[in-house]
Amino acid sequence: MRPIKFTRGFTTHPAGSVLVEFGQTRVLCTASVTEGVPGWRRGSGRGWLTAEYAMLPAATHERSSRESVKGRVGGRTHEISRLIGRSLRACIDLATIGENTIAIDCDVLQADGGTRTAAITGAYVALVDAVTYLRAADLLTDPQPLSCAIAAVSVGIVDGRVRLDLPYEEDSRAEVDMNVVATDAGTLVEVQGTAEGATFSRATLDKLLDLAQAGTEKLFEAQREVLAEDYPGTLPGRASS
Amino acid sequence: MRPIKFTRGFTTHPAGSVLVEFGQTRVLCTASVTEGVPGWRRGSGRGWLTAEYAMLPAATHERSSRESVKGRVGGRTHEISRLIGRSLRACIDLATIGENTIAIDCDVLQADGGTRTAAITGAYVALVDAVTYLRAADLLTDPQPLSCAIAAVSVGIVDGRVRLDLPYEEDSRAEVDMNVVATDAGTLVEVQGTAEGATFSRATLDKLLDLAQAGTEKLFEAQREVLAEDYPGTLPGRASS
Amino acid sequence: MRPIKFTRGFTTHPAGSVLVEFGQTRVLCTASVTEGVPGWRRGSGRGWLTAEYAMLPAATHERSSRESVKGRVGGRTHEISRLIGRSLRACIDLATIGENTIAIDCDVLQADGGTRTAAITGAYVALVDAVTYLRAADLLTDPQPLSCAIAAVSVGIVDGRVRLDLPYEEDSRAEVDMNVVATDAGTLVEVQGTAEGATFSRATLDKLLDLAQAGTEKLFEAQREVLAEDYPGTLPGRASS
Amino acid sequence: MRPIKFTRGFTTHPAGSVLVEFGQTRVLCTASVTEGVPGWRRGSGRGWLTAEYAMLPAATHERSSRESVKGRVGGRTHEISRLIGRSLRACIDLATIGENTIAIDCDVLQADGGTRTAAITGAYVALVDAVTYLRAADLLTDPQPLSCAIAAVSVGIVDGRVRLDLPYEEDSRAEVDMNVVATDAGTLVEVQGTAEGATFSRATLDKLLDLAQAGTEKLFEAQREVLAEDYPGTLPGRASS
Amino acid sequence: MRPIKFTRGFTTHPAGSVLVEFGQTRVLCTASVTEGVPGWRRGSGRGWLTAEYAMLPAATHERSSRESVKGRVGGRTHEISRLIGRSLRACIDLATIGENTIAIDCDVLQADGGTRTAAITGAYVALVDAVTYLRAADLLTDPQPLSCAIAAVSVGIVDGRVRLDLPYEEDSRAEVDMNVVATDAGTLVEVQGTAEGATFSRATLDKLLDLAQAGTEKLFEAQREVLAEDYPGTLPGRASS
Amino acid sequence: MRPIKFTRGFTTHPAGSVLVEFGQTRVLCTASVTEGVPGWRRGSGRGWLTAEYAMLPAATHERSSRESVKGRVGGRTHEISRLIGRSLRACIDLATIGENTIAIDCDVLQADGGTRTAAITGAYVALVDAVTYLRAADLLTDPQPLSCAIAAVSVGIVDGRVRLDLPYEEDSRAEVDMNVVATDAGTLVEVQGTAEGATFSRATLDKLLDLAQAGTEKLFEAQREVLAEDYPGTLPGRASS
Repeated sequence: MRPIKFTRGFTTHPAGSVLVEFGQTRVLCTASVTEGVPGWRRGSGRGWLTAEYAMLPAATHERSSRESVKGRVGGRTHEISRLIGRSLRACIDLATIGENTIAIDCDVLQADGGTRTAAITGAYVALVDAVTYLRAADLLTDPQPLSCAIAAVSVGIVDGRVRLDLPYEEDSRAEVDMNVVATDAGTLVEVQGTAEGATFSRATLDKLLDLAQAGTEKLFEAQREVLAEDYPGTLPGRASS
Repeated sequence: MRPIKFTRGFTTHPAGSVLVEFGQTRVLCTASVTEGVPGWRRGSGRGWLTAEYAMLPAATHERSSRESVKGRVGGRTHEISRLIGRSLRACIDLATIGENTIAIDCDVLQADGGTRTAAITGAYVALVDAVTYLRAADLLTDPQPLSCAIAAVSVGIVDGRVRLDLPYEEDSRAEVDMNVVATDAGTLVEVQGTAEGATFSRATLDKLLDLAQAGTEKLFEAQREVLAEDYPGTLPGRASS
Repeated sequence: MRPIKFTRGFTTHPAGSVLVEFGQTRVLCTASVTEGVPGWRRGSGRGWLTAEYAMLPAATHERSSRESVKGRVGGRTHEISRLIGRSLRACIDLATIGENTIAIDCDVLQADGGTRTAAITGAYVALVDAVTYLRAADLLTDPQPLSCAIAAVSVGIVDGRVRLDLPYEEDSRAEVDMNVVATDAGTLVEVQGTAEGATFSRATLDKLLDLAQAGTEKLFEAQREVLAEDYPGTLPGRASS
Repeated sequence: MRPIKFTRGFTTHPAGSVLVEFGQTRVLCTASVTEGVPGWRRGSGRGWLTAEYAMLPAATHERSSRESVKGRVGGRTHEISRLIGRSLRACIDLATIGENTIAIDCDVLQADGGTRTAAITGAYVALVDAVTYLRAADLLTDPQPLSCAIAAVSVGIVDGRVRLDLPYEEDSRAEVDMNVVATDAGTLVEVQGTAEGATFSRATLDKLLDLAQAGTEKLFEAQREVLAEDYPGTLPGRASS
Repeated sequence: MRPIKFTRGFTTHPAGSVLVEFGQTRVLCTASVTEGVPGWRRGSGRGWLTAEYAMLPAATHERSSRESVKGRVGGRTHEISRLIGRSLRACIDLATIGENTIAIDCDVLQADGGTRTAAITGAYVALVDAVTYLRAADLLTDPQPLSCAIAAVSVGIVDGRVRLDLPYEEDSRAEVDMNVVATDAGTLVEVQGTAEGATFSRATLDKLLDLAQAGTEKLFEAQREVLAEDYPGTLPGRASS
Repeated sequence: MRPIKFTRGFTTHPAGSVLVEFGQTRVLCTASVTEGVPGWRRGSGRGWLTAEYAMLPAATHERSSRESVKGRVGGRTHEISRLIGRSLRACIDLATIGENTIAIDCDVLQADGGTRTAAITGAYVALVDAVTYLRAADLLTDPQPLSCAIAAVSVGIVDGRVRLDLPYEEDSRAEVDMNVVATDAGTLVEVQGTAEGATFSRATLDKLLDLAQAGTEKLFEAQREVLAEDYPGTLPGRASS
């Protein structure tokens, strides 16, 4: 597993802002709180959590074109955005935040494989900070809306061997590629195993899941460590105290 | 498991055209062969297989708006289109078809849960027909480009119990929802387990996978049965014999 | 004239759902009832009827690209959608359905010429079923909101001779091409005569109109015959009787 | 019929540029010659004629929004653009202009009913000027590529009576509305009769066609008169004489 | 400086409609009053002024493609539209018009350099007419909402010499190109000096500004002259007197 | 003036990558070299430099929506992207880089006023690094393609006083706002002075320009200082030496 690093408070406007690094992969994860919920949820009294993932054009080895300029969001972007949203909604009780939306933004500054798993793992830390902010602002109906921690890691079969947290060079030639989103309670949130142009056995799946769960254990540890420090910024109400 | 039905040759222009029914879910799956490949693959001498999934507006209980009119393809549509493409690319050797593209189109005429798994399962049958067509047209460098059969099924936890091939009514209240794409060689192509607002254990995952593999066995049997019949249409070259 | 066939209740979610076949041309026509009307009509107390026409990518001889993927609706699609809407609004008193919208969707499953005339002719049958549904649901202020039947047929000059209901092979080389939308009261709703790269005389126009009216007579007969059967599904309120 | 006025050479860059006025309706019609043809026609050795129609936002009584800002061309715009193109292609032999495209642009400066018929009638005059320009530039393989003149007029039933060339106030409450595109050889190019929420008899159709043909006679006369004058600008090659 | 000409009342639907000509450059500038303001300004009790600039396709030497057909507004169009809006908002007190919007449309009929400066200069005249209209309609809370006149002119360095009001032939080879928006009170509203592939000194900037201010003096004179005439149309309320 | 900081080599894939900070404003500026030039420049033998500016959604005080999701680039984004491109093209001889494109990307990570001037100032440093990279890769026909340094600063009138490098809090209530792009040779590249709802005198313009030039002097000093250090990464060819 590559070195993991979290920088909380990387930017100051959003309630939560974390730069997460999985080796050379660097993703800025922010959690912003905005008033209101999407139309289909209005009047429910419950909040919503949404996520958007994007790559800066120069994040990849070859510059890629900007989706805003192309005028449409690509399929891969859509897919990862939805995955991040589902993953984080697994740990938060949205009934506790009223009709507000937590918008998670994961912008990849530098890509070297595993951007989606880094994004989920970093976004959880940003979400914890956003929840701390909401608590300080007295906007929660329950002070502990989070039921568990969330982390994600990629595993794969490269040259016939199972590998954890694949950098781009390995990922691009992996026979099987799996992303596992897990909780620190030992359960799973999302398992996406894909064999591009190949297939895999149940035995392989089990080995990959074992390795992934070992990997997420380390991520939970790293999250706990960085979250042991104080909220990186000024909390509402603190100024007056 | 709901009754499964395949109608080969449902329409006549594409090389493969199959109406697949999983209970009340009905998807028209076609496989069209077009000359040329996407730009990034040009000059490789190898073909490509791409897939597009869509819903007719009136396929759902409440009419949904048309993506062409909205001017953009939604995230769910993107995600499923990509899944279908990856799943079918697992069974075909694209080096055998030259620089041609097989375009899979899965259009949902009526939706009642499991549209993506029905689409994959039906698309495989359409792909077999398209391959038969290509073989008759003498366009294959290897007469057997398919290495296995592909089928997919959804499984889930509803009211705390594992369920196979969920109709809409169950799917919409499932705690865990998993789509499994498998081969008739007993291996897996894609496993997508999702817990919307919940999580699941490894033990549950195992139970769901067992059930899914039992389900896909039945689907492979149904595919074999319907494919035992002749190609439903006129093959190139046959007219002259 | 090619064989005409209507299959009512082809799908079950919309209030009206008809598969219409003009020879090899097959169009799925649905009529869905949705609450509310477009903004410019709000507060009028009157309903609206709108129509959308589309082709499945594999409906044509050569696969055509999907308009949702291209991100815009083409001119031909727009033109036909508007024609279908105007044609059906000629037969219904929209004051009787309150501020609701009847959405007509005509999706071409297989194209072999005359898709727009088949669409109009089939959509009328779907509209009758939707009206039956609204009546059973007690949503009409007048039980007979339809004043006449609507059908459409194409006529043209091919190789210097007038022809009725042109299949694709004839349509593509017709000198003059006309679409006539008529009522069973003997009147006309829409006449669109077009000479691509040529012109035609009043005498020719008259001959084409005569032939078209003869053709629509047969279509009205076929509509009456299929509509003599019961509503193909469960009507609201019937369950309780 | 409202007063008709043509101003040739209204702008100077395009080969043909005509401001046409039908009463208060004013449309700027230009014909520009550009090299090349659309992809599907390349290699045919034949040219193409295409047309685009648009309204300035302030052309209508109430300002309408700009289609470029909305990001999509509306159905009505699409429909009229296609009608203008078909109408003018009826009078020109495109084999004579090589692989070049004549782009007709009809921009409505002020709208008061009959914008599409004014556009066609004015565009013909602009096309004649463009042909004169091409002839002077020695770009025609046949010096007389035009086989007839084209004009269009609207007719309708207002308050139960047939009316010619309807201004907006009448057009908006017409029971039947018909646009007729004719040639000065007495033939028809396009007949589009529409009854919004009503129907019409063959006898009414005949009366409307009679009136329309009388109207187009006057338009052909006005076209001939204005075209009797010299080309309004400098022709290529003339400078050297 | 090229001859300047204003034609007020060029079209009749908008409250202000002016054709402005700077030599061969001709721009139709209209000012339309519409109810309501953009969302972010709602409830403020203050109005808004917005502007949109566009070129007809045949306005340029070579026909350019239509932005509505391309489906997006280009960068240059965006930039000029914003400049026109800012320039005119400098002279009007938007608190006096209630929650209404003045929409300025500047459509270039013929382009020969300086289209943006002609647009601003002509739009001011259209704005004065629109204000006269609003005053007659009794819609102003202050009868004199305009604090000064606005005009704009381009200056540049061509072949090493300063030039005023550059036509296209000079503009396209200018080393430095500056657009100056000024008021008749001697102040500046906007200064945009650009050196494409070059730079310029403060001394050059001063010379260009001097020349520009001399140029705008002449434009203010021309505006005053044409505005000395009566409102070109019927004012609300006048009919009854 | 706020503290200025450059971090070269902030990311490693692009040839130049600089994080620039003007106080709390932080912009990631990258310069990527890609093969080929836009169509209109092909065959000229000369290169091109293009720029794109964007804001991360959470960069602003209130989260703003993502332009890729909205499907279109806004006017402000377009305007600033074009400004950055023009500014940097003033210092580089594009004939020296062959038919290649230097793509400048300026992504605002955190916004606190002056994002466009920080972007230009940082992009120049990234451009120098990209040129060093091109030189090492032996891709330049002239080893010194840059003729001067480029920096930009904002100046404005706040509460009646001239201010340099305005943070958001001052910028949002500035009466006059000017962006000045200058060279270290003492010349100007671009001057954009804007008075939103106000105007300014020549005397004020002069004072603002004086202050801006003093500001850019400091920026040139800071650029020189940071560029005195070695290229932050591995240059092509160095590995072999």
